[in-house]
Amino acid sequence: MNPINGIFVPHVVPYSADGSLNEGVLREIVSWLIGKGVSGLYPNGSMGEFIRLSFEERKRVVKIVADESRGRVPVLAGAAEPNTDLVLEMCRFCADLGCRAVSITGPYYYKPSQESIETYFREIAANSPIDIVLYNIPAFSTEISVPVLTRLALDCPRIVGTKDSSADMCRFLHIMNAVKPQRPDFSVLLGWEELIVPAIMMGADGGTLSTAGVAPEAIMRIYNTVRKGDFEEAKRLQYKLLELFQTMLKAGNFPAGFRLGYKARGFDIGHARFPCSEEEAVLLGEVAKKIACLLGECGLDEKLPRCDLPGFHSKTPYSGKQAPAGQLASAILDRTRVEQLVREVMASMK
Amino acid sequence: MNPINGIFVPHVVPYSADGSLNEGVLREIVSWLIGKGVSGLYPNGSMGEFIRLSFEERKRVVKIVADESRGRVPVLAGAAEPNTDLVLEMCRFCADLGCRAVSITGPYYYKPSQESIETYFREIAANSPIDIVLYNIPAFSTEISVPVLTRLALDCPRIVGTKDSSADMCRFLHIMNAVKPQRPDFSVLLGWEELIVPAIMMGADGGTLSTAGVAPEAIMRIYNTVRKGDFEEAKRLQYKLLELFQTMLKAGNFPAGFRLGYKARGFDIGHARFPCSEEEAVLLGEVAKKIACLLGECGLDEKLPRCDLPGFHSKTPYSGKQAPAGQLASAILDRTRVEQLVREVMASMK
Amino acid sequence: MNPINGIFVPHVVPYSADGSLNEGVLREIVSWLIGKGVSGLYPNGSMGEFIRLSFEERKRVVKIVADESRGRVPVLAGAAEPNTDLVLEMCRFCADLGCRAVSITGPYYYKPSQESIETYFREIAANSPIDIVLYNIPAFSTEISVPVLTRLALDCPRIVGTKDSSADMCRFLHIMNAVKPQRPDFSVLLGWEELIVPAIMMGADGGTLSTAGVAPEAIMRIYNTVRKGDFEEAKRLQYKLLELFQTMLKAGNFPAGFRLGYKARGFDIGHARFPCSEEEAVLLGEVAKKIACLLGECGLDEKLPRCDLPGFHSKTPYSGKQAPAGQLASAILDRTRVEQLVREVMASMK
Amino acid sequence: MNPINGIFVPHVVPYSADGSLNEGVLREIVSWLIGKGVSGLYPNGSMGEFIRLSFEERKRVVKIVADESRGRVPVLAGAAEPNTDLVLEMCRFCADLGCRAVSITGPYYYKPSQESIETYFREIAANSPIDIVLYNIPAFSTEISVPVLTRLALDCPRIVGTKDSSADMCRFLHIMNAVKPQRPDFSVLLGWEELIVPAIMMGADGGTLSTAGVAPEAIMRIYNTVRKGDFEEAKRLQYKLLELFQTMLKAGNFPAGFRLGYKARGFDIGHARFPCSEEEAVLLGEVAKKIACLLGECGLDEKLPRCDLPGFHSKTPYSGKQAPAGQLASAILDRTRVEQLVREVMASMK
Repeated sequence: MNPINGIFVPHVVPYSADGSLNEGVLREIVSWLIGKGVSGLYPNGSMGEFIRLSFEERKRVVKIVADESRGRVPVLAGAAEPNTDLVLEMCRFCADLGCRAVSITGPYYYKPSQESIETYFREIAANSPIDIVLYNIPAFSTEISVPVLTRLALDCPRIVGTKDSSADMCRFLHIMNAVKPQRPDFSVLLGWEELIVPAIMMGADGGTLSTAGVAPEAIMRIYNTVRKGDFEEAKRLQYKLLELFQTMLKAGNFPAGFRLGYKARGFDIGHARFPCSEEEAVLLGEVAKKIACLLGECGLDEKLPRCDLPGFHSKTPYSGKQAPAGQLASAILDRTRVEQLVREVMASMK
Repeated sequence: MNPINGIFVPHVVPYSADGSLNEGVLREIVSWLIGKGVSGLYPNGSMGEFIRLSFEERKRVVKIVADESRGRVPVLAGAAEPNTDLVLEMCRFCADLGCRAVSITGPYYYKPSQESIETYFREIAANSPIDIVLYNIPAFSTEISVPVLTRLALDCPRIVGTKDSSADMCRFLHIMNAVKPQRPDFSVLLGWEELIVPAIMMGADGGTLSTAGVAPEAIMRIYNTVRKGDFEEAKRLQYKLLELFQTMLKAGNFPAGFRLGYKARGFDIGHARFPCSEEEAVLLGEVAKKIACLLGECGLDEKLPRCDLPGFHSKTPYSGKQAPAGQLASAILDRTRVEQLVREVMASMK
Repeated sequence: MNPINGIFVPHVVPYSADGSLNEGVLREIVSWLIGKGVSGLYPNGSMGEFIRLSFEERKRVVKIVADESRGRVPVLAGAAEPNTDLVLEMCRFCADLGCRAVSITGPYYYKPSQESIETYFREIAANSPIDIVLYNIPAFSTEISVPVLTRLALDCPRIVGTKDSSADMCRFLHIMNAVKPQRPDFSVLLGWEELIVPAIMMGADGGTLSTAGVAPEAIMRIYNTVRKGDFEEAKRLQYKLLELFQTMLKAGNFPAGFRLGYKARGFDIGHARFPCSEEEAVLLGEVAKKIACLLGECGLDEKLPRCDLPGFHSKTPYSGKQAPAGQLASAILDRTRVEQLVREVMASMK
Repeated sequence: MNPINGIFVPHVVPYSADGSLNEGVLREIVSWLIGKGVSGLYPNGSMGEFIRLSFEERKRVVKIVADESRGRVPVLAGAAEPNTDLVLEMCRFCADLGCRAVSITGPYYYKPSQESIETYFREIAANSPIDIVLYNIPAFSTEISVPVLTRLALDCPRIVGTKDSSADMCRFLHIMNAVKPQRPDFSVLLGWEELIVPAIMMGADGGTLSTAGVAPEAIMRIYNTVRKGDFEEAKRLQYKLLELFQTMLKAGNFPAGFRLGYKARGFDIGHARFPCSEEEAVLLGEVAKKIACLLGECGLDEKLPRCDLPGFHSKTPYSGKQAPAGQLASAILDRTRVEQLVREVMASMK
């Protein structure tokens, strides 16, 4: 098997009006992304709300993605199931579907010791019929420490890589330093858009970037630019990416902002599986326009509405010396500030 | 319906050798606890590893507990399912079984805004056929803030109480102060053994205490003592409880230490659903003896082995002026220290 | 020497218009507090902005307090100087002035290991001519862990007590449990108003409460009530205290809110030694009225303006069944919300 | 004035046997560093234990450094004094000595709001006779948020740069993105060795790196390599730097490990101004040998002892494909583990 590299897309799950999986739109997204040149697909990640699906729904998502992609790109499927037996059942299921590997987070809810987490992954690695990527996302689940990750990488052939969404560049460098000299084929993938250019400059093998589901053209352009060594242009694009990513990251409850991005690209994906308050819904409507404009700015105007937000300076991309486009964005984006304002205004109207 | 009060037991789930639910032992535990006089049962709490069970297994646990208790005590069942539809399905299931109420944590993994969490609970409360207890356990799931909890308590008749496992006495006092004057029948239950006496002194309605599954006699004695106003004796018992609780809390990965307590009381409950390392297993063996001795010290010698740990001063209960019993415990219990020592010793033997 | 107990007042430092120490007002405050029956005085605590004074100013503050109190009450003086030599110089200075003891925080800025902190306090204890109180305030300086505090308490005669401002009732109970049985004369003082009643119920020796500088009558009444065993009344007063404390705690930057309290009591103490923004200054003006009203509610109307805040239900003290007084307070107090609102409004006016 | 760029050295303060400043050795260090080609000097930083010196000692340190450097390199002097008046007094003092700028941290001990911190820096900037660098070091003092830093950078000509020791690459990128397009001459300096290469690749102006005081040859080589665009070699050196930095960072209490580095380079700098326990002192002795060997590995053998640590693979520098040198280091460096082990062994010998 080849090492895992390039840009994998942790995509959303679309729902129908009744809240059930929308298979048609999911297939549409998969083929659209493959058409845009992404390196691989990543169902059942945090973006895909895996934890809000039933076990059967998670299986169905992988099945649809594997079926629709028809081997055109590799599939890295989330398998962070609630106990070892179910993890292994999902591993077998994904193996049978021909997935390239599964991705498993550290435990959530409980916070076991690092020693126990190591034992847990060793057990899975010893019994899995499919390659494993260790998914570190300390904001949501217990961290997999660098020493544990290193020992697992050096001891377990089944564990072939890591996806790191800690937003911690130092952690990334320490993993590279600890693992790569002894196992150069171990894949180190960044799961944080803001660090993708410096990480690839420093040797990362690729990324699993949610933004790649919304703006695959932009992300693939960044990836290809930095891979071919055009660091000046890669740098420029990295800075340009910050605002789009932050806008989607901070809009409502993750992953709501990224879901707005899919809508801006024309996909009817329905509501996320967690409610938001009325005030937040109003706010999301505003941010949706902003996201559409930012995507337009990236030159991704296919299906996008023309930008007519007051004060939004379209067509003035960040060039290293000028004011960053979209100052409206910063006014919109401080969630706390805006939530509070909206509450206040609504309260005053009562 | 009467307000919920007294001591509810968040009990373990026993497993057979093959890892499946052990219905026989679960029934045994339920009837044993009822026989000891506990106020109610609490299946599918954090102690019951709800998150490591499948949806079907969680249903089966509640069914067994409801069936075995046969109305002798009320059942408060965990219903922290992964999305609103599944929460409501579990609510209906528990209602049909005649449970007194369900208990629902804040969201885990994702960390939605407090406004969204409020909306989430309002939706559930509007559609649930059974009373709801808000379960705040910030170590494992997103906090339910005091303002949100207060608004929910004052607006939603279906939300009849809270279980607080934050170990934060100030939070408890603020909840009491914000809710009780306007809704005196709202139940405030403490989920932290170390604060049970001061909390009841300050007006709490009871507790959901894991230790009550291991030492129901001791916990019910504390509860009855403080309820009847014998504060001096209650104080003495509260201090005495600290060591037993800390010993079980810090032994291995929660809830492993409490599971050792059940074993010490004679229940064959099998292994928790998360592995521990070999070194940790060795350590747990040591702590098991310690827990047995501490339980013996509490006068709970039924089924317990005689204590022959070197240096363990049995029969010298803490009396407010003497050295606390079981200095060995403090030597055993600092998990980090011991783990490291064991690793070191094992390394040196290689 | 007698053990330290009762209520010590960590008082403010008043400044003149030019920013220098205002000796006259400081003397006025000291004698006023003694007249109100407080147990002792505590210059150079966090309330006294010790870290914003020069070394010479700190000496002068203690000198004035010791001189003005003239042995009427004991003085516990802060001596958290930046290195061991300066700590010991301050210890000698306070000893010469006849202070009862000094209080020393864990290190600030740097975060040494617990082992080093233990060594640091052992060195000071071995060389100090005056008794020492260990001041734990983890919000501002490195925690002194329970094991370290216990070893110091049991080994060092010079270390005679602890002041705990962690707001952590569990920590308090563990300290009591670890130290008191072996050294009953070790003073355990609470530095958190919200826990004073339950802590004294559970055996605390007293408190160092900033509110005692603003409302000495109220705090001494609570202290005397709980000491004489009238727990029902003590409980009622504890709940009543929550709002006043939170109002002062959260108004602007600590200790600005408490300084407003002194002003409400008629003391011209000048501005704290850190600026606040214009918006915050406007907000503090609002909170000042609220604090005055809350103090009036406590029956402390001496020198206080009549309360005419709209919506403020004066003369309806919390009685356990009614709405808490001062709902305006909760509207005013969420600092983030208000700051943001004010910013927004001011921005919209430009 | 030219923008501040290059590598500034936050150097230690050497002490004589009696604990007083050792002026002779300080002058020796200053001239040695200048001889090694560093870009500038940085007295009274965190490395220089500014907070453990008296105000007079801090002045003396700057005076000696300014005097000894005689204009050969610019001096950036720490001025994080405890109140605005004293900050401004230090600003004037440094201006009179001809320093290039002062560096001021966010407030320590107290944690004022971001709005107040902004006001504080605006006041200082409006009154300072010398340029100011905003020093963000959230591990030790209150963070200066990106929006506040941005507003200050865009509004205050006196504020000419920032030193960022947050180890947060995302924060660095956001600062670059927010400030540079509008104020390209604003200096962004990294204060974290592990990120120096990627940061300069992404546009940073330089660094204030403690390691530059111990291994100025190595740091200047990295800086010059990345500046001239040799990214492959810069990358190799960046990875090589990780172990040396972590070894010094984690040895004992910061900045003890770096002080060992100065000793390894032959400077008699005495003990830091905070005690360490006996066990920690034993451990530091071991780490000292390790640091000497690591420095030797960097080719900095001037004055260094030959490395004869068992198991230390000298002369096998990290080359991207081999095992990292110094596996002993990782065995030595987990402070918690070793502390605990040493305690245990010493306890068992009693």
